[in-house]
Amino acid sequence: MLVRSAGDAKGIAYAQGVQKRVVIGPRDGAPNFVMRIFDLEPGANTARHAHDFEHEVLVLSGRGVLIDGEGGETPLQPMDAIFIAPDETHSLRNAGSETLQFVCLVPSRGEDTP
Amino acid sequence: MLVRSAGDAKGIAYAQGVQKRVVIGPRDGAPNFVMRIFDLEPGANTARHAHDFEHEVLVLSGRGVLIDGEGGETPLQPMDAIFIAPDETHSLRNAGSETLQFVCLVPSRGEDTP
Repeated sequence: MLVRSAGDAKGIAYAQGVQKRVVIGPRDGAPNFVMRIFDLEPGANTARHAHDFEHEVLVLSGRGVLIDGEGGETPLQPMDAIFIAPDETHSLRNAGSETLQFVCLVPSRGEDTP
Repeated sequence: MLVRSAGDAKGIAYAQGVQKRVVIGPRDGAPNFVMRIFDLEPGANTARHAHDFEHEVLVLSGRGVLIDGEGGETPLQPMDAIFIAPDETHSLRNAGSETLQFVCLVPSRGEDTP
């Protein structure tokens, strides 16, 4: 078993104003799914996209919105859990003045960080 | 997709001083893994056990210890990520004076809440 401060995991520039850290993954021997933590600067957003695997997300800090395939927005706050099913178009945006931080889990095949 | 405040998920008494909430699971259509949130009162611990599936854990608040199969203790604080591989004996205990809260993900077959 291992214990690792999430802040010690290497940050990867993922998009403009978006940092990703893989905190538990295949390199640790994780056999099925991967834990990543995202930090979005105020105003930043993840790409609007869809893929054939799910996201399970928990908002840790900040304020944001979840944007669906029709552009509909759902507000997000800390301790909101988000389930995005396979093939659902989605994006997350920081709608507040502080960093929006969330943990996002995907099946192993959904994470391609080497 | 769905957004749900973790606090709205039904709490289940899991052990003495331990509450579990399934916040994303098979009933939501989650195909592979399940997000649960645990709250441990000061002094409470999860059962010392092992099973043939992994845990991926992120500590959200409080102070605790992770106890391994030999009784070794690793301190835990917020934003510590824990990977417990299949078949590793483990327990978590609240070693602080506030609630120890963590999110713990398992493969679907590891969660039996109906």
